[in-house]
Amino acid sequence: PPVRSCLTKALAARRPPAMDPSQSAPSAPPRLGGSSPPLDLVEITPNALQIGALASRVVCPTAGGIATFTGTTRDHFEGKQVVRLEYEAYGAMAEKEIRAICGRMRARWALRHIAFAHRTGVVPTCEASVEIAVSSTHRKEALEAVQYAIDELKAHVPIWKKEVYDGEAAAAWKENPDWARGGAGKSTAPHAHVAQA
Amino acid sequence: PPVRSCLTKALAARRPPAMDPSQSAPSAPPRLGGSSPPLDLVEITPNALQIGALASRVVCPTAGGIATFTGTTRDHFEGKQVVRLEYEAYGAMAEKEIRAICGRMRARWALRHIAFAHRTGVVPTCEASVEIAVSSTHRKEALEAVQYAIDELKAHVPIWKKEVYDGEAAAAWKENPDWARGGAGKSTAPHAHVAQA
Repeated sequence: PPVRSCLTKALAARRPPAMDPSQSAPSAPPRLGGSSPPLDLVEITPNALQIGALASRVVCPTAGGIATFTGTTRDHFEGKQVVRLEYEAYGAMAEKEIRAICGRMRARWALRHIAFAHRTGVVPTCEASVEIAVSSTHRKEALEAVQYAIDELKAHVPIWKKEVYDGEAAAAWKENPDWARGGAGKSTAPHAHVAQA
Repeated sequence: PPVRSCLTKALAARRPPAMDPSQSAPSAPPRLGGSSPPLDLVEITPNALQIGALASRVVCPTAGGIATFTGTTRDHFEGKQVVRLEYEAYGAMAEKEIRAICGRMRARWALRHIAFAHRTGVVPTCEASVEIAVSSTHRKEALEAVQYAIDELKAHVPIWKKEVYDGEAAAAWKENPDWARGGAGKSTAPHAHVAQA
């Protein structure tokens, strides 16, 4: 019946960002009533993120709602014009920390699928550095979980950002205020410059 | 400079859903520091919604975050298999109510752009009936505002849904629990069947 193939159709309907193949959609079509296996998709990539693309990755026939958050480079910080951001990730540790966040999300809320994507390298203004999408049967769970997810990512995941300003203002590796206020990840930091804001 | 044209580029980068032309992106490029005019995009359409598409409509050089919610048809309700939903909107009133929600959102939070899209007619499982996207300088505002937006839409906007079940279960126009608990819109309801859930 059409219901059973709609996840596959949704995934095929747009060019998704490249994901770890071991984490791609299951080859068996999803079953009804929440019995299809929940997916935790994690991607850390130097490639551009298509804004909004992750929502279609978490479509699920048993889900009535999808919530997303996308972090984009903005053009100003404390009165200075920001030309671009640069991100550096400690890849293996970053993915491990993100998967730990997925686990904590699932412990708190009944969720269907979760997807995280983080771009590394230069991210020009208006482009996305991070995107998170969550699906759930009812909307409340997805909406709460995505807010928790971005807060946790900023507090715990070893990804750093450098803001590059226009004109004479010197580029600066920025400290993430969340992290500075007591994020647990500091001991995993592989660089002297500090966490992603 | 590239910063000034990125909204235009983002809008051109994907085929957007058709919007009221009077509400489309401004022809002047956005200016820095929050001075580009904030947009309230509202679309009520019989056409399919591309899941995730609205996020790119609210990209803004002064925004650091975009939050979205997408409501999708799920395959079950109280143990019955749902084949599809059908939505009926009282178009002019629905758009007016949604623009009133935009106003209340802006009174509560500092937001950049807001976009609402609602599909009418048959919405098969896994497809989107509604999508909302909000951008803001900092993430907290967009995340809170999108949750408020979908709650308000369900409570106040005159759009009705009919669930069509598999097999012998009779199709039913569904009452929205939010509305039944005291949503303010009941007096605007043009039909005997009740509000969208």
